[in-house]
Amino acid sequence: MSQPKLSIQLNCPLPKLDFDVITLGHGSGGILTHRLLDTGVFNILKNDLLIEQHDGAVLKFDGPVAFTTDSYVVTPIFFPGGNIGELAVNGSINDLAMCGAIPEYLSLSFILEEGLRMDEFWEVLLGIKKASEAAGVPIVTGDTKVVERGKGDKVFINTTGLGRIHPKASIHANRARPGDVVLISGSVANHGVAILSVRQGLEFETTITSDTQPIHKPVLNLLDELGGDVKFLRDPTRGGVATVLNELAIQSGYGVEIIQKDIPVSEQVEGACEMLGLDPLYVANEGIFISVVSEAQSTNALKILQRFDPASSIIGRVVADHPKQVVLHSRIGGKRIVSMLPGEQLPRIC
Amino acid sequence: MSQPKLSIQLNCPLPKLDFDVITLGHGSGGILTHRLLDTGVFNILKNDLLIEQHDGAVLKFDGPVAFTTDSYVVTPIFFPGGNIGELAVNGSINDLAMCGAIPEYLSLSFILEEGLRMDEFWEVLLGIKKASEAAGVPIVTGDTKVVERGKGDKVFINTTGLGRIHPKASIHANRARPGDVVLISGSVANHGVAILSVRQGLEFETTITSDTQPIHKPVLNLLDELGGDVKFLRDPTRGGVATVLNELAIQSGYGVEIIQKDIPVSEQVEGACEMLGLDPLYVANEGIFISVVSEAQSTNALKILQRFDPASSIIGRVVADHPKQVVLHSRIGGKRIVSMLPGEQLPRIC
Repeated sequence: MSQPKLSIQLNCPLPKLDFDVITLGHGSGGILTHRLLDTGVFNILKNDLLIEQHDGAVLKFDGPVAFTTDSYVVTPIFFPGGNIGELAVNGSINDLAMCGAIPEYLSLSFILEEGLRMDEFWEVLLGIKKASEAAGVPIVTGDTKVVERGKGDKVFINTTGLGRIHPKASIHANRARPGDVVLISGSVANHGVAILSVRQGLEFETTITSDTQPIHKPVLNLLDELGGDVKFLRDPTRGGVATVLNELAIQSGYGVEIIQKDIPVSEQVEGACEMLGLDPLYVANEGIFISVVSEAQSTNALKILQRFDPASSIIGRVVADHPKQVVLHSRIGGKRIVSMLPGEQLPRIC
Repeated sequence: MSQPKLSIQLNCPLPKLDFDVITLGHGSGGILTHRLLDTGVFNILKNDLLIEQHDGAVLKFDGPVAFTTDSYVVTPIFFPGGNIGELAVNGSINDLAMCGAIPEYLSLSFILEEGLRMDEFWEVLLGIKKASEAAGVPIVTGDTKVVERGKGDKVFINTTGLGRIHPKASIHANRARPGDVVLISGSVANHGVAILSVRQGLEFETTITSDTQPIHKPVLNLLDELGGDVKFLRDPTRGGVATVLNELAIQSGYGVEIIQKDIPVSEQVEGACEMLGLDPLYVANEGIFISVVSEAQSTNALKILQRFDPASSIIGRVVADHPKQVVLHSRIGGKRIVSMLPGEQLPRIC
């Protein structure tokens, strides 16, 4: 799993460079940096905006723009279902979508550890290319730094995203009202369990893969069709579903009620969580989102989400009771408060 | 020098948190992350846009926008004249200015190493606040990740900047023509020598400090007053003046000629470079820039630059001879080709 092999067909051959690993010189800003960038990175990711300028890209916007940043430090950098490059592209695309924005541009900044194997670097870069092309969101500017062996961990990536706000979007937790419905766009906990399975060297009977994927298309469909009836959007990455629902409760000032049996968890993930002592509600996801939609439009919202993923589900609602708290109705008929993730659960999950 | 002390007065007391160091839990996305951000980071950096949203900021622009990103890995994180926080803010502000843009917004993303002392983190954050306020460019969105001890190095920072293009700006190396004049906005090599002096534990007779500062004001003055006669702007950070001039030569297709005696280097820096075996032309700077201006406006350009720093100087010109090469006329009357920095000189200088 941690042995990368080039999985993507390039139109051009991979750059031939006379080094096998990243060296400190690749971060110097001099000839080695230029060779790495010009013959490697720019060649693979090329587009008109990226080629134009070294210091920055010049973009045009019409109307309000969302701006979002994330650094990715996931370990291992290759995992079932993806790699850190895909994750970094999809992650910032998804953060834009959560603002009600149409993802348009990304920046890309690497912090590489001296000694990183070039074939691993290319594989990450190809993951970036694949994800960027699949979502139709180009990388338009970037940066590369190198730190000494033992001062980093192979590859850290920052992506920062820009996109214009959807004309019908009005997304804010304080627009939630009692009666509004809480939906989820797919089954939970796949990403965290996939990462943990590799880290622990565990072999599950069936392979659980990360759900890393762009989620802007279902979001934009919701906004196109339901407009202001979509009130809140957030992707349950670090801290999982429980943390996002707590953010919703705290920021709206209302309570949130969820029904355990309606929360989609695949059998394999459920089994793995039991084995590992994890609560799926706290496990990170990378390709699903939670939305709050008016009760009147909840059936339509569910239909839209199910066009993209049949596991999408209505998992609960906003309530006037127990303000700022999330209460779960369990399968066995009990009720319990679901708190925010108290400390670390899975470090470096994204 | 590496012992931080809080050097900035806050209007509010520093957040009281019941931990002395950064732990993995601060990167989990759960309660600890929220406490670090809500009571710490947001409290110190607060502004309307930052408070509004966790997933991203929503901005408005009129006309074309520059977008630039940089990750900062400088070591040590505290150095004479600044810290990594100030450097990260000033650096991306300067990259925007080099695009001919008016810096408007920054994102801020931390990769913290487990065990980082909280007082060091606050000091970096205060450096960010100070630089952001001094330049009038707010931090509007951000991210915080934590990696295990030994997988990072105290603090890495990514800043990504946005700003609208100055209406009179038309900045591109391919606008340079033979006869155009090359200017520099201050004396060279201060940043690199300041960093190296701390790293090596050297004590120079007088203290050389980093030149980290925002340079958008002289740039905007040049653009206001000289418009399209300003053809090229670039700040000589990693790789130094020599690398930027080589980029100019390669990208314009013309030659560049520089006069050694006209390149401003302070006596202390010159002495330190001799002692350390460094060529000041390859040493990183963080608060100066190189510009190419039409011959007709060169005197005016120099006057504008000297209002901000009397050390500003005309250091050479674009020539039709030796295309794509930089030639230096030395003090002793010789000529030599100045190549791009061949490999590493000072790793992790920014």
